[in-house]
Amino acid sequence: MACPNPKRVCIIGSGNWGSAIAKIVGSNAVKSKNFDEKVTMYVYEEIINGKKLTEIINETHENVKYLPGHKLPANVVAVPDVVDAAKDADILIFVVPHQFIRTICSTLLGKIKATAIALSLIKGFDTAEGGGIDLISHIITRHLKIPCSVLMGANLANEVADEMFCETTIGCKDASAGPLLREIIQTSYFRVVVVDDEDTVEICGALKNIVACGAGFVDGLGLGDNTKAAVIRLGLMEMVKFVDVFYPGGKLSTFFESCGVADLITTCYGGRNRKVSEAFVKTGKSIKELENELLNGQKLQGPFTAEEVNFMLRNKGMEEKFPLFTAIHKICTGVKTPLDFIDCIRNHPEHMVEGAD
Amino acid sequence: MACPNPKRVCIIGSGNWGSAIAKIVGSNAVKSKNFDEKVTMYVYEEIINGKKLTEIINETHENVKYLPGHKLPANVVAVPDVVDAAKDADILIFVVPHQFIRTICSTLLGKIKATAIALSLIKGFDTAEGGGIDLISHIITRHLKIPCSVLMGANLANEVADEMFCETTIGCKDASAGPLLREIIQTSYFRVVVVDDEDTVEICGALKNIVACGAGFVDGLGLGDNTKAAVIRLGLMEMVKFVDVFYPGGKLSTFFESCGVADLITTCYGGRNRKVSEAFVKTGKSIKELENELLNGQKLQGPFTAEEVNFMLRNKGMEEKFPLFTAIHKICTGVKTPLDFIDCIRNHPEHMVEGAD
Repeated sequence: MACPNPKRVCIIGSGNWGSAIAKIVGSNAVKSKNFDEKVTMYVYEEIINGKKLTEIINETHENVKYLPGHKLPANVVAVPDVVDAAKDADILIFVVPHQFIRTICSTLLGKIKATAIALSLIKGFDTAEGGGIDLISHIITRHLKIPCSVLMGANLANEVADEMFCETTIGCKDASAGPLLREIIQTSYFRVVVVDDEDTVEICGALKNIVACGAGFVDGLGLGDNTKAAVIRLGLMEMVKFVDVFYPGGKLSTFFESCGVADLITTCYGGRNRKVSEAFVKTGKSIKELENELLNGQKLQGPFTAEEVNFMLRNKGMEEKFPLFTAIHKICTGVKTPLDFIDCIRNHPEHMVEGAD
Repeated sequence: MACPNPKRVCIIGSGNWGSAIAKIVGSNAVKSKNFDEKVTMYVYEEIINGKKLTEIINETHENVKYLPGHKLPANVVAVPDVVDAAKDADILIFVVPHQFIRTICSTLLGKIKATAIALSLIKGFDTAEGGGIDLISHIITRHLKIPCSVLMGANLANEVADEMFCETTIGCKDASAGPLLREIIQTSYFRVVVVDDEDTVEICGALKNIVACGAGFVDGLGLGDNTKAAVIRLGLMEMVKFVDVFYPGGKLSTFFESCGVADLITTCYGGRNRKVSEAFVKTGKSIKELENELLNGQKLQGPFTAEEVNFMLRNKGMEEKFPLFTAIHKICTGVKTPLDFIDCIRNHPEHMVEGAD
């Protein structure tokens, strides 16, 4: 269908995931009359072998630093200034590390279209003032006064760039924006389900990393498949309960989407949180030491999210209702040892629900 | 609490899983005044090194053939005659291969207590007359005129026998039987959740094997973690839909129990259905050849269940609404090749749900 006002799309971020999504968005923008062909991509400028990364991308159509080996469509244009990249856009796709989101929002404030809509692909929470969590999509909406949908799922970036079949979930409250976002994102190999339960979709993308630490402990302790499945399931139930307590109104069905059970499985079998947590048990080193050794000092998401979540649980006196999240936090911070893990979840509230006796 | 009429428990079956559960049930019967200490276990008589298996079990308290290396409690008594074993029992725990259930029911008919209750641990469907499926618990209830609950979960028998932490689900409609069944089954390492959604619990235990074939195809094709997670999730959604269509009244929450998502995960990452299906793709041999080579000619559950389910879907003209189950059946029977698998699920009804455009 022809569209009188083709929408302009801007991708804010150009890391591994941002570049993989640029490949999809660029290709879809060419195919549909609903979108302007030119897609801008904000690239944090770096010098690679004496040359600017934006220039390399615009000349070779390859993000040689973050997604080497994959061609981006020629209509994706790298822009080193975030305001230049975003100012004319109708759809802003945020895909930067979450610690940069507040700065970027401040920079963009008053410089973007008032009618623009946002889509956040950023996983993880931000820390709220005074402790606890703040959802990235809420930060974007609060700062920029525009609605913000989210996209989460079992989407390892390199596999998406390789065009391997997978699914994703878009959480979008606005029924008119849903089809548009779906059209710019969906391909024959990247399948989209749109749900209106935005907050739940985003929360799944952060809490799964806590559960993955538990899965890593199980692997490190040499426990079996049954135990790992139980830990993943109990983690899922605490994710459901967390949404219920802190973001009421979420739907159980959302946890069956790619952002829920599928992403959780992938993260608990692959993923760095599982891997580092396994090493934590096997080596006896601290999380901080392992972050330095294995992640170049980058913070591991799971333990960090566990800490933020624990702050909220303690505030509500609810640590005991979330024994798995609580145990993982206490083990990561050295208050308990990995050997205590299973004893902490043996009498899980889930095993008491029906109040049989 | 003392009980004026301690319940007698009989375990019908003594394979790997039956013996692991006998270890639990025997130990719990001693601990609780609600149960008679003596637990009978029907053992299909075999001669092991010139000696009867029942005699070996009753003298050494070890099922040397099916659960070597684990001691059964001394109060578990092996009985070679199923009527002798079952006739005084108040609780009958069925844990035999599903092809024997009709014969055993015929043998027991009129020989058991009219007030007895049953618990089936048997995974898989039976074939209904004329095609389609018959639930094992329904067969037991129909033949013996007693209520039959079910127990399913992520419960690899050897890990349960090793007392590694896990969970299980009991589906039990009768609110008064639930606590009793829970008491005879639950231990500090084998955690029970009782739900009233019996049929769904049992159906999960069979359908997961179809999905595991799909997971095996993904592994055999060398596709990635994203794709595997998508196949597992789409399989779960078809499980939900299957219950909805053929056994309406099931609850979505049941799929979050151990019998649902946890058992599905374990089966799709470990398990023989996944393994043989991977070999099916890699070797190009037929399922039948692989059954002969890898399973001593024993039938692989997944392809067999896929066939029974396909019969039901075809009868209702619903093959297209279950593209994953349908594709797996067609690939197992050689109508399609594994390379067709992903194309069959690319336009899954799940990706159309919100009817966006």
